[in-house]
Parts: sequence; structure tokens; C-alpha cells
Amino acid sequence: MQAEIITIGDELLIGQTINTNSAWIGEQLELIGVKVYQATTISDNETHIINALNNAKRRVNLIIITGGLGPTKDDITKHTLCKYFDTELTLNRQVLSFLEKKYAELNLPFDETSKAQALLPKNCTVLPNTRGTASGMWFEKDNIVYISLPGVPYEMKGILTDEGFPKIKQHFTTEKVIHKTVKTVGVVESKIAKILTDWENELQQNNLKLAYLPSPGFVRLRISGIDKSGHLELYIEKKLNELKKLIGDYIYGYENDTLEKIVGELLLQKNKTVATAESCTGGTIAQLITSVSGSSAYYKGSIVAYDNAIKINVLNVLKPSIDKNGAVSQEVVEQMAINALSLLQTDYAIATSGIAGPTGGTEEKPVGTVWIAIASKQKVVSKVYHLSYNNRKRNIQVAANYALNMLRKVLLNEF
Amino acid sequence: MQAEIITIGDELLIGQTINTNSAWIGEQLELIGVKVYQATTISDNETHIINALNNAKRRVNLIIITGGLGPTKDDITKHTLCKYFDTELTLNRQVLSFLEKKYAELNLPFDETSKAQALLPKNCTVLPNTRGTASGMWFEKDNIVYISLPGVPYEMKGILTDEGFPKIKQHFTTEKVIHKTVKTVGVVESKIAKILTDWENELQQNNLKLAYLPSPGFVRLRISGIDKSGHLELYIEKKLNELKKLIGDYIYGYENDTLEKIVGELLLQKNKTVATAESCTGGTIAQLITSVSGSSAYYKGSIVAYDNAIKINVLNVLKPSIDKNGAVSQEVVEQMAINALSLLQTDYAIATSGIAGPTGGTEEKPVGTVWIAIASKQKVVSKVYHLSYNNRKRNIQVAANYALNMLRKVLLNEF
Repeated sequence: MQAEIITIGDELLIGQTINTNSAWIGEQLELIGVKVYQATTISDNETHIINALNNAKRRVNLIIITGGLGPTKDDITKHTLCKYFDTELTLNRQVLSFLEKKYAELNLPFDETSKAQALLPKNCTVLPNTRGTASGMWFEKDNIVYISLPGVPYEMKGILTDEGFPKIKQHFTTEKVIHKTVKTVGVVESKIAKILTDWENELQQNNLKLAYLPSPGFVRLRISGIDKSGHLELYIEKKLNELKKLIGDYIYGYENDTLEKIVGELLLQKNKTVATAESCTGGTIAQLITSVSGSSAYYKGSIVAYDNAIKINVLNVLKPSIDKNGAVSQEVVEQMAINALSLLQTDYAIATSGIAGPTGGTEEKPVGTVWIAIASKQKVVSKVYHLSYNNRKRNIQVAANYALNMLRKVLLNEF
Repeated sequence: MQAEIITIGDELLIGQTINTNSAWIGEQLELIGVKVYQATTISDNETHIINALNNAKRRVNLIIITGGLGPTKDDITKHTLCKYFDTELTLNRQVLSFLEKKYAELNLPFDETSKAQALLPKNCTVLPNTRGTASGMWFEKDNIVYISLPGVPYEMKGILTDEGFPKIKQHFTTEKVIHKTVKTVGVVESKIAKILTDWENELQQNNLKLAYLPSPGFVRLRISGIDKSGHLELYIEKKLNELKKLIGDYIYGYENDTLEKIVGELLLQKNKTVATAESCTGGTIAQLITSVSGSSAYYKGSIVAYDNAIKINVLNVLKPSIDKNGAVSQEVVEQMAINALSLLQTDYAIATSGIAGPTGGTEEKPVGTVWIAIASKQKVVSKVYHLSYNNRKRNIQVAANYALNMLRKVLLNEF
């Protein structure tokens, strides 16, 4: 049981629109045990659509097509499908009356273009679209199922959720695929790979796949396998426990966890509050923390002390400390954290001071040097990082995430 | 001259990662006059990769492959390419010494796994990767060019920009395509389209294409055409002048301009400084401003007053003003701006206070209500926006950009 996703649209090929439909459909199919073999993006062109369908039917037994169902001239999928299945368009009374009602409700004139949306291929089973005007279509031919859907994500998702996926589960016997994603921070892919050599070999011997998914500062590990015995979930759990012993220091969460979410949950659990005092990260830590809904319960605010005058006048950093050590120093970042704690009256405070680049680096403190401090009522801890990105935004982003991770470790008494 | 983009990675097929690589490559190829015929996503599987290459070479003369070049076991592209081109891996001395230096700089041990990144197919031209460890590769066979690149977007983009695109332009005769992008803020696509009807018709009569590229808060307009006469640039300039008269109020820049860059340039020109006092935007304005290199010349810092206590204790907002009007009000946001101006000692201050959602809305002040104020030594101006996004992050992002745009207008005496 394998599937191919065909997304139709010039806007996808020239990068005007990022293809989120493929990602969403792939994710959902995976969850119901359908393996996506390929995702193909093509233009609104009859020959190309027919070629793509002919190629796909040799590879898979489920083909999901999105796009090209609008009433405008450049949308040609419906006509092409009629040609492909050697059938013709016919007026669907049910869809027509639904559309008439919808247009009346919206006070829109129901003209010929609108009415054309009720013309559908004779041989298809209609998958009703309650959120828009272009119906979904289900075709069966030579033991292959074809589903054609509008490209508008909201409508496409609605049709598949309400009609498509239940019908797929009924039609095919699907295998149960299990995925677990482990999220690490502050370690490179090659280092983890080395530590995990034996652990990974045993995974493979048990027909499980391990994928390394790196992004700046982070590596995600994804374990996947087909549950034939019914015991796979237990086995993966055992392997995850082993993993914790091997690289637990780097693991901050699982599945869709983010550092800002995990830190927020820890603060809520402990009923503690946090503030930030940011220099080089320039508000990015504040931005990450406040991107989480409900963060106002534990986040008070930030002093973005970009200029040294703000460090001195608002954050009360001692001028001689800056004069002697420079703003990017342990002494200054610790003062920033301690003073933010008392000024903003929180249980914890994060402070950063560093050189994001591309200018401002010196031999002693090159671009990428970042001091991070965490203050609590009991103590202040600090650490210097040497980030090596040749990219200002990346240095800022990674520094902000390392700062969140440091707070996470402090909250867990691991720092 | 047509291209196919093949992106390799299970994480793309199961929707764990959204395929932004295809979109970016498609966009960039379009800019240099290469038409993307198809984009194909497949898994890390040897047979599948070889089949995809075999299919693509029948359709196009340029194939760009991303993904599967890491040093870990699940990355198999390099070995598969050796098989496909009937060649073998050989140690590349230049890449080796680059990697040795890089690892030494990072203080990382240079082990066998790391060294394997210097093993490259004998018949390829190396496209150096200065941002990571996996080199790009350029192959030529039967008049078809194959480029293999790492999947990490930052590295992939770097290699193509520095090495790939110049080499493509040299190798193929591409037509000279001219693109001009006009950037607008605070107006919807349909409204611009209506104003531009006649202007757009004349463009089309002259074989120019106009694309509307909307994103939250913004619409980019891209004019594209093939320069056959050598006079196209002049004609486009004339049309751009007309455009300024029609929708000049919404235009903030061109090509890669961002609001934070434009605002920074205006402040530098006028030798003025700015600070921010952010509530609902939670540090996002600070983050945007400081993402620009050199922003320390005009940006002093921010008070992120997420909690009302910070508004009162640090920003000196009058408690009765909050009690009477609520924090999301003209009175409070204006006090925030005025007080930030004096506390952070700048020429201008931006303040925001609003409800980003999903919770916190009321009938009187629904989610998306955002007050923005700009204070200068002469005056304070403010305006309320009603953003309608059903998405917290989007409301925050749009509010931050509207605030930057308001400062831009104040700096130009247009507010």
C-alpha cells in the first residue's frame, strides 16, 4: 500500500507558494499507515498531468492530486481527468443545489462560471466540499484509487478529513507505522552518530529506521518502523530509555516540543516566573517565549539593552565593569541577569551579551562569542559559547535557543 | 532549457519538514530564466533515487538534487550517484584540508566519519561548501547537468548562490529575464488589483507578466519579462513611476528591502535613534530591528513590558490609566511610547499593546486589536489596528511590521 501525492500549480514550481499541501497530506497518510512513495509537483498543463498520472500508477495504488479545480481558465484538472478516465462532465444535482444555497447565503450572483463547479466527471464519487465550491472526486480504475482535491489548504484538509481518509481506511488494509522523534540541542550530528553506533545497529537489526534531521543548534532523531508484532511500541520505549542514558544531556523533548514550550511548562509546573535582559539576542528570547500562548503566566518582560547606555542606566550594570571587561564578558552578563531579576521581580532571569557579527569581532572575542547567564534568587550561573556561523541571524537564533536551554537545565538542576 | 528539482528525504514525504528547498530553488531558477518543469520528492532509497534520475533525464537538461549528503548512515545520495554515474569515491585533498581546518577551528575531533565527507565521486566537479561539511557536486553526462547539494537550506542556498547559479548561467544559454519587485504593506491583493486594472493591462500588452505575491501584512508585486529589444529596463522604469502615483502610499521598498532595513536607513540618514516598548509584540520589533547588521548605530533597546507590573514599575505607565482603559488602549500605548523615549533617551520610540490571541479577546476588544504609538520629542501619534488572523504568531508578526511602517511614515512626515 503506497501513495503518491501530485500537486498541480505553476505557483508551486516557481516558489511563489511553498508546498504545504504535500507535507500535510504526507503527515496524515503516514499516521494511518499509508507510505508516501513520492510527491510530485507539476504545472497546470494537460499533457504533463496525464504523464504524471501514468507514471504514478506504475508505482503506487493510491494517487492524491491537489490543485487546478477553480473556475478560472488556468485550472484544467477536471477536464484532464475526464480525458484520462475517458469520461465526460455531467451536472451533479446535489452539488448544484448546495452551490445555489451557498451563493444565496453569501449574496453572490450565481452565474455560469459558478454553476460550472457543479459539472463533475460521470464516473467519480463526489467527496463533498462544505468549505468551498470545488468538490473532491474519488476515482477507481485498475485497482488504483485516485483522489482529486482543490488546492486551497483549508478546503483540501476538510475534504480529506471528513471524507477522504475514512474512505481510504475502508478501502485499503493499511499497516501500522510507528514514529518517535527525539529532539536534541547543542550537539552536532556526527558526534551523536558516533555515540549511537551500537545502539543504532541494534535498531536496524530490528528493522527500524533512524533519521538524523539537523537544523542550526538542533538535531532531531526520528525512529520509524512497521508494527507487525504489536510489540513495537514497547521495544521503541526500551530503546528510548537506552538513548536517554547515552545522550540524555542533549535531549530536551519529543515530537513537536520546542525549547520555549518546554521551558514554559517547567516554569508553570514550578510556579516560577522569568524575565530576560538581552544584548546580542536583541529581543529574540522574548519573542520566542511570548510566541507560546499563555506565556503571560510566567513571563514578565525583557530589557533589551542593546546600547551600553541602557545596560548602565536601565539595568544598572556598573560602568567600570564594562570599561574594564567589555560588554561581552562574564562580569557584565552576570550583572545583567542579577539586575534584571530584581528590576523585573521574577524568580529567574536570562541575560545574553555577545557578538552576532558580521562586524564587531576581535582576535580575543571573535564573531560568535556569546556569554549567557541565568540568575535565580539563590545563584547566578554563566557560560561562554563560541558559535561558528558566518551568519548574523543564525548566531542570534542559536544563542537565543542555547539561553533557553540553559534555563531549562537550571530548572532541572542539571546545570 | 528546463530543470527538475529532486528533493530527497523521508522527513519531506511524511511532512515532518516542509519542502522549502524546492520553492527557493524554483524561485531562483525562474530569476535566471530557467523554467522548472517538475519538482519531485523521494525517499532516501537507492533504487528510488536512480529511478527518479532516469525519469528526470528524459524530461529536462538540468537536474538539481538536494538531501542525503550527511555523514550518517541514512544519507546515501553520494553512493547512489557513484553507482548511477558508474564511478567511485575518491579522497579530495582540497576538501580534506578545508575540513581539517574547520574542525580544528571548532575544536572538534576529526574522526573517520568526519573525514568521509572528503570522499567524493571521481567524475564530479566539487562545488565548495564554505558553510558546512557536505560539498556540492556538479556532474555532466549526455548533455545533462546534475547538481547534488546538501539538504540543509542555509548550506544549499550558499553553494548555489556562490557556485551553482554562476556555473549554470555559464553553461547554458539562458534568456535575459528582467524582474522587478515592488514591496507594499498594509493593503490587500484584491484592492491593489482593482486600482491597477488599466496599468496591468498595458503591461500585458507589452508581454510583461505581473505576479501578486501576498504574505501576512504584505503584498509583493513582481514584474517579469524577457528583454528582447534591450529597452525593457527603461520601459519598466516608466511603469514603476506610474505605479508610485497609483499606490505609492503602500510602497515601502523594492527587491530585497525589508521594513527594518528601510527604517534603519532612514534613521541613519537623519542621524536619529529609536527605542521600543513592546507589550503584545513581545520583543519582535526589537528582534526585527537588531536583525540588521549595524543597527547598534540607531537602536538603543527595548522594554518588553509583557506584564502590566513592568509597564507600571519600569515604564512608569500610570496605574489608573491601565485600571480605567485597560492595557490595550490609546492612553496606555501613548504613555508607553513617551516614557520609553525619555527612559531610553532616544529621538523616537515605538510602543505596542494588543491582544495576539488565541485567548484574551473580549467583545469590545477582540483578538487582533492592536494599538501602536510612535513618540518623538515633538509629538506622539497612535492608531488602532484590527488584525483578523486566527493565528497568534501571525498577529504578532503583522503588528510588529505595521509598527515599523508607522515609524517609517513618521520619519517621512507622511503620518
